[in-house]
Amino acid sequence: MSSIKDVASLAGVAVGTVSRVINNIGSVKPHTRDKVLAAIEQLNYVPNEVARNFKMQKSKMVALLLPSIWHPFFSELAYYIEDELDRHGFKLMLCNSGGKPEKELYYFDMLLQNKVAGVVGITYNHIEDEVSADIPLVSIDRHFAKAITCVTSDNYEGGRIALRELLKAGAKKPAFLGSRPVVYSDTMQRKEGFVHEAALHGIDPIVYEGPDKCLDDAGFYRAFLEEHADADGLFAITDMAAAMFIEAAKTVGRRVPEDVKVIGYDGIQDHPYFHPVLSTIRQPVEEMARTAVKLLLKKIDGDHVGQETVRIPVQFRPGETT
Amino acid sequence: MSSIKDVASLAGVAVGTVSRVINNIGSVKPHTRDKVLAAIEQLNYVPNEVARNFKMQKSKMVALLLPSIWHPFFSELAYYIEDELDRHGFKLMLCNSGGKPEKELYYFDMLLQNKVAGVVGITYNHIEDEVSADIPLVSIDRHFAKAITCVTSDNYEGGRIALRELLKAGAKKPAFLGSRPVVYSDTMQRKEGFVHEAALHGIDPIVYEGPDKCLDDAGFYRAFLEEHADADGLFAITDMAAAMFIEAAKTVGRRVPEDVKVIGYDGIQDHPYFHPVLSTIRQPVEEMARTAVKLLLKKIDGDHVGQETVRIPVQFRPGETT
Repeated sequence: MSSIKDVASLAGVAVGTVSRVINNIGSVKPHTRDKVLAAIEQLNYVPNEVARNFKMQKSKMVALLLPSIWHPFFSELAYYIEDELDRHGFKLMLCNSGGKPEKELYYFDMLLQNKVAGVVGITYNHIEDEVSADIPLVSIDRHFAKAITCVTSDNYEGGRIALRELLKAGAKKPAFLGSRPVVYSDTMQRKEGFVHEAALHGIDPIVYEGPDKCLDDAGFYRAFLEEHADADGLFAITDMAAAMFIEAAKTVGRRVPEDVKVIGYDGIQDHPYFHPVLSTIRQPVEEMARTAVKLLLKKIDGDHVGQETVRIPVQFRPGETT
Repeated sequence: MSSIKDVASLAGVAVGTVSRVINNIGSVKPHTRDKVLAAIEQLNYVPNEVARNFKMQKSKMVALLLPSIWHPFFSELAYYIEDELDRHGFKLMLCNSGGKPEKELYYFDMLLQNKVAGVVGITYNHIEDEVSADIPLVSIDRHFAKAITCVTSDNYEGGRIALRELLKAGAKKPAFLGSRPVVYSDTMQRKEGFVHEAALHGIDPIVYEGPDKCLDDAGFYRAFLEEHADADGLFAITDMAAAMFIEAAKTVGRRVPEDVKVIGYDGIQDHPYFHPVLSTIRQPVEEMARTAVKLLLKKIDGDHVGQETVRIPVQFRPGETT
């Protein structure tokens, strides 16, 4: 059977020109148009093939679902995800889905319609029931109960490292400060690692947690400072929480690191020009991004991806707060 | 002429099912398939229409070209661009193009192939000769010599405001610190506004500029401090440059704001938890983003977009450095 290339070659035009004639779009000179139609007739070319090939063409687009690109951790992640996709000839579609499950589901629909080849997602919405387990989806940080491949930093190990670093810096009364998310997330392992490591050192650490969103509220940190004036080491579940704690501590005259050592989690500070430069457990963002993309491309190719949760090792990055 | 909807309705199936049968993709039960084929025959439906409609379908995708999403100004911009596109039913494709003109040109090719409906771009590459002036393209910050619609903050006015704020804070010897970009950019107007406003006050300000990339080099700031020890007010072309200057000033014992007042440009700090909180000319990022999208959608619709450069007003945001 003749192909569109045969038609183009016989007519002495580009494939795009043949396509424009067939689909009656764009401008084609009458003379050229006649040449193309003659070639189509001569070769008995069936233009309907064009439609089929077009539809069958695998999408080279991957959707990235993030709560918000306007956050240093997510924008760094998106940077490396786009870079890795680009290396493999894929394009990135970006969706800020924060708090909008219907927006996320729209992208899963596109996946079903073959308009995107796969989805990389950090979702904190309850979309689990709507998503099938066997689609090309790789989750970051967030576990689904279903067997969806997930890439995270080694949150548990990060918690253990934080505890040891606080002790090394001289803390005797270490505390964990965090929130209880609405849906299960691997980030909850930060507390687990911290508490278990403390037990190994014969320490019963303070665990201070509020409901979802408590970390955005300055009052939460002041309440902690009032209730636990004796805490001399703090592991905050994120860098932002660490920074907000330090501001609150200032207002009650507690100095960091003199009176209380502080370690965050994320490593959102790229430059040492804004202070305090936080001591933190640095997320291996680049490796997480590239790993997630590689796993996704395997899934898109139909390969079996065995490991359900891939945990990338983390490191402590000392700053000015320990 | 019958439509695919008529076929679907007669066969008692969804349009998607008809499409799957026509294009021979996905799984359709044999019984359903027969019903669809019977309906096609009965209605004398020409499936080739499907191909045409599919091809004629306008892309609902807009490409965003940025040097790097991993930068607070660009990620905020991308956040609002995606949000505004979403309100109009468009999706965002993201491209980190920093220093890679061939990557940008790829997206312009997609535009010509109708795979994206338009492009919003911040480009610092020399791609001008390759891009036609009448495509749906809106540029941010960067002027092309060609009449391409550009949205910027009011850089000139920002420079004037910065000069006045430095004087108000008590500076007698104001200085401008910046770099000379390789291609013309509207950001160069920051210096112009600063210098012209100074002239109105009878002041001849220090203008200190290095070649492209000088702002990344700590040595550049130290050289300025050595040569202009008498400067007591500084307008830095970006917040990052302001922050790097402040670090360099510390090392030679010059205090901010006591010895030298500093104003940046951008407003990259979203939270007051990291210090110094810069006094800055805040870019109206949300309005720039929404304006750029609205202008682009007009161009996509074929409307005439008259104004070549749209300048959005800026404001001074006081911080800890003036």
